[in-house]
Amino acid sequence: VDRAGHGELENGELSFLARLEARLTPAPPGQTWIGDDAAVVRGSRQALLVAADAVVAGVHADLALCGLDDLGWKALAVNLSDLAAMGAGPAWAVVTVCAPPGTDLDLLYDGLLEAAATYRCPVVGGDLSSSPCLVVSVTVGGTMPTGAAPVLRSGAAAGDSIWLTGAVGASAAGLAALRRGERSGALVDAHRRPQPLLAAGRAAAEAGATAMIDVSDGFALDLWRLARASGVGVQLEQLPVAPGATAEQALGGGEDYQLVFTAPPEALVPDTFRAATLPDPIWCGRCTAAGGTLELGGEPLPVSGWEHRL
Amino acid sequence: VDRAGHGELENGELSFLARLEARLTPAPPGQTWIGDDAAVVRGSRQALLVAADAVVAGVHADLALCGLDDLGWKALAVNLSDLAAMGAGPAWAVVTVCAPPGTDLDLLYDGLLEAAATYRCPVVGGDLSSSPCLVVSVTVGGTMPTGAAPVLRSGAAAGDSIWLTGAVGASAAGLAALRRGERSGALVDAHRRPQPLLAAGRAAAEAGATAMIDVSDGFALDLWRLARASGVGVQLEQLPVAPGATAEQALGGGEDYQLVFTAPPEALVPDTFRAATLPDPIWCGRCTAAGGTLELGGEPLPVSGWEHRL
Repeated sequence: VDRAGHGELENGELSFLARLEARLTPAPPGQTWIGDDAAVVRGSRQALLVAADAVVAGVHADLALCGLDDLGWKALAVNLSDLAAMGAGPAWAVVTVCAPPGTDLDLLYDGLLEAAATYRCPVVGGDLSSSPCLVVSVTVGGTMPTGAAPVLRSGAAAGDSIWLTGAVGASAAGLAALRRGERSGALVDAHRRPQPLLAAGRAAAEAGATAMIDVSDGFALDLWRLARASGVGVQLEQLPVAPGATAEQALGGGEDYQLVFTAPPEALVPDTFRAATLPDPIWCGRCTAAGGTLELGGEPLPVSGWEHRL
Repeated sequence: VDRAGHGELENGELSFLARLEARLTPAPPGQTWIGDDAAVVRGSRQALLVAADAVVAGVHADLALCGLDDLGWKALAVNLSDLAAMGAGPAWAVVTVCAPPGTDLDLLYDGLLEAAATYRCPVVGGDLSSSPCLVVSVTVGGTMPTGAAPVLRSGAAAGDSIWLTGAVGASAAGLAALRRGERSGALVDAHRRPQPLLAAGRAAAEAGATAMIDVSDGFALDLWRLARASGVGVQLEQLPVAPGATAEQALGGGEDYQLVFTAPPEALVPDTFRAATLPDPIWCGRCTAAGGTLELGGEPLPVSGWEHRL
């Protein structure tokens, strides 16, 4: 922060904000987005879903390997993935950027607003602050399709099938490729520009998903969280490894943002996905009554993934 | 972040989260707060107000002078003040904490949850991340009393009276006192534990406020923002200086979280405040048709305040 005279104001925060405001989707009549103490958005009698996730430079994104635009994209995408993992769709986002002086905020917002446009999630407000390190903290609001209930982590029952919306490990393999000096390709893209699977989340909810979570910290750890919340055990019959990734990257790499969900064995899951013209989900195994156990091919599976050291 | 084996998980993020979860207000039936990908909160057909503000250690709070509990209090309080400045009341908060390893998160949450209890704003979700610097990023949702419209910055008209809910400058005077070595007293409290004036914001809305803003960056700068948004000029007849503060602290100090609002001259503003058993608001001057001008006692006033250098 800096105490600034009237003249100086035009060169710092205010001029960036004016530029940003011009880039944002304008609010529809009756709503007020940027420019007041709080944003005013449309209410809905339906439940409101709220998710919050921060991306910290040097922790969640290595700026030697990813651009500020990638970091901006990721900050919104990981939040949208949380909505996808409930079967919800996005309604709005608020974006708080805490950045060291000199950070190219326009580039950061290039990526963030590209994600906002791609997934139709308007940025309605936020905050901008100077900071010794770069943190992009996003909160998203969303709603379920009419009549649908949010898919929690806790609804899986013994006997339910376990499905993945796609193979895992691509993001970790992409990070390894970036560290080897590669700068393009499908794996690198998977790491730099994760895709929130909003349509797949809706399809899973519609197919009767009993529990769902997104693979952010590692397939094994996130599946373990779902199983623990549901009080079930997990018997995996197969591990869908993304092309170019290793089994270790698939199990523990994280940041894949594929969705893992459970459904009764009789649910017509692939039919629902085909009707929505989505890639077939992959059957991985089943839930068991032996809560606290996690097995792959009959062997106990160590849970590993990303945890923040505090 | 750290890749952690199953055993280690219990000692880091997960154990703090379990402790935190036990301290939070439990969700009412039909809602899901902490513990899933997104929080599920009650919807409302009314407009939803969303505000986001971050507190960065070393920028918004000097941890040599304030405790981590004060920083936690402040992070929620400044967001509630944004709702107060619309005439709204709080519904929920999501809290994202990005903290260096070893930060006393329990102490931080002591202050934050004290504010949440004081102002009846449940924490329904959030995120926790390791970070090179301490950032507490909060988003709050709120609603207006039934039938009331949000009070924007842009509604003031020439001829409207300008009111302050209380004298300004106490926070800046408190910071100066802390720097001189004082550790208690009303001014120090004003700096360490700002009070969001939710009841006063409601009363102002009820009294017919045409525009409102909270004094976060400095009385002159925030009033100038209101005037600019409304396209009016400002003629201040008096500057209400808090006891113990200087005129400079009152004009430019900021962080007072008093509310400045405008109302037609015939509005019975003090009566409304007295009916709500609130301290009398202070009449400061009037709006003029000369947009872009800001005068105190007939002299042009330089706008100064806090701006983030970016």
